[in-house]
Amino acid sequence: MRRVWGGIEGGGTKFVCLIGTGPDELLATETIPTTDPQQTLGAAARFFERHGADTSLASLGIACFGPIDLNPASPRYGSITTTPKPGWANVDVLGYFTRRLGLPVGWDTDVNGAALAEQRWGAARGLDSLVYFTVGTGIGGGALVGGKPVHGLVHPEMGHIPLTPMPSHSAAGVCPYHGGACLEGVASGPALRARTGKPAHELGEDDPVWEDEARYLAHAAAVATLMISPQRIIFGGGVLKQEHLYARIRQQFVALLNGYVQSPAVTYEVASYIVAPQLGDHAGALGALALAMDVSRPE
Amino acid sequence: MRRVWGGIEGGGTKFVCLIGTGPDELLATETIPTTDPQQTLGAAARFFERHGADTSLASLGIACFGPIDLNPASPRYGSITTTPKPGWANVDVLGYFTRRLGLPVGWDTDVNGAALAEQRWGAARGLDSLVYFTVGTGIGGGALVGGKPVHGLVHPEMGHIPLTPMPSHSAAGVCPYHGGACLEGVASGPALRARTGKPAHELGEDDPVWEDEARYLAHAAAVATLMISPQRIIFGGGVLKQEHLYARIRQQFVALLNGYVQSPAVTYEVASYIVAPQLGDHAGALGALALAMDVSRPE
Repeated sequence: MRRVWGGIEGGGTKFVCLIGTGPDELLATETIPTTDPQQTLGAAARFFERHGADTSLASLGIACFGPIDLNPASPRYGSITTTPKPGWANVDVLGYFTRRLGLPVGWDTDVNGAALAEQRWGAARGLDSLVYFTVGTGIGGGALVGGKPVHGLVHPEMGHIPLTPMPSHSAAGVCPYHGGACLEGVASGPALRARTGKPAHELGEDDPVWEDEARYLAHAAAVATLMISPQRIIFGGGVLKQEHLYARIRQQFVALLNGYVQSPAVTYEVASYIVAPQLGDHAGALGALALAMDVSRPE
Repeated sequence: MRRVWGGIEGGGTKFVCLIGTGPDELLATETIPTTDPQQTLGAAARFFERHGADTSLASLGIACFGPIDLNPASPRYGSITTTPKPGWANVDVLGYFTRRLGLPVGWDTDVNGAALAEQRWGAARGLDSLVYFTVGTGIGGGALVGGKPVHGLVHPEMGHIPLTPMPSHSAAGVCPYHGGACLEGVASGPALRARTGKPAHELGEDDPVWEDEARYLAHAAAVATLMISPQRIIFGGGVLKQEHLYARIRQQFVALLNGYVQSPAVTYEVASYIVAPQLGDHAGALGALALAMDVSRPE
């Protein structure tokens, strides 16, 4: 039997499961609503058991919503830690699949997974350092340095970098931890809705809200460039379906750096520095597939 | 002859040269004022030639002020790029020493060097991810991820992360590129002097300027934790000779994160998370020594 891999993007609203060898060859996919852990994890495991009968599944990867424990030396390695999502705190996701499927299982955050997928098959092919921001209900960020996802103390939580809201914006924001004093608090989908009364996709392209949004996201991009110096920055997530945002972010990003960083990538070549993802809705699950490939034993 | 290594910290005011095997065994050191490149590099080279006669110098490392070109594929690899320092723009420092001494030469930024030295012998021994901020005439930052200095597009320029100055502080700041809208613009030694009329070391411990300074540096630490999730953050440089700053930074850092990042290191164990360097004035040159060790051929 030919060797294939399995990937799971574990999200707060759905689990996307797939089997294949990459974006050009997905043999099976299934989307499972996120309810309670037993049901959701059980349904995902059955997907792989069912298809595992016809294919030789070498390993599994999981790119999971968090915060999660990524420290292999920790007794909680492989668990979701402190999510407010009912029933999901302290769930040992990695352990569940390892025991039930008897395969090697790779494990990382959902955004690190998306970054890995874009680096292997998408908008950052061949680069070894990049930052990926996803802007939707929340804001997340993942980074690769030296081709590998960045972990350390825990994992980056780029959505919560501190900033000062614009004078015309409510300091209350929408972040339960930081109000309007962090990126997610002022620039996530719910923050836009709080300011305009509408969801992001219903706002017109000429709405003044977008210049402000671009300014916040340009701030995030500038922080990424100055802290990590990535070779590319990807913005994805629901809010970025407003495609006019990319040009606005680039313009404000160049203005913020003001010529300090000496590289064409952050001046006249910025259109290929701040970019959209290329892998669409499967990016997270494909990232999980990449994680699976990285833990599978050589044939 | 016993194997030893050479290190150079190339700074804007002085070049520190040393030969040895680590902080406990420095066989020779010399400090050379930074004048024009020919004189300064020439004097540094003579130091190694002189001592190279008695010892077997395996390789050299250089931790250099920047911005510098760190991309091995670039035609300018090994050069200082765009410094305003007269005569030093586009100087091929790495090429000079490689040709003159005929040794393998390691090459990185001064702050990445300091980070590497603290990780090998100092305040971050055994950790594989850390961020090092130096706060003096300017503000610089270096990071290790997976035990290695972070490079990408260029190198981090953490001193210039964007922020909003406090309402009571001048928006003009002191950064020629960003005014008061970046860390260096409001929190470097010259920024303190602009606000108080005094150099940092003449300001009393109870001066109200320090709570504001701690707030800015806590902001930088929070950005580091949220972007890179390092296992430790070191603050060094002239301004941190005011040792009371550490407790203030920690307190404001914990307040800024407000419990979002779930790790004892950033809550009740913060005293061992945000720390002072341990290697003193030789940290940069010792970092260069570590770079030398990493490029020398195995014996």
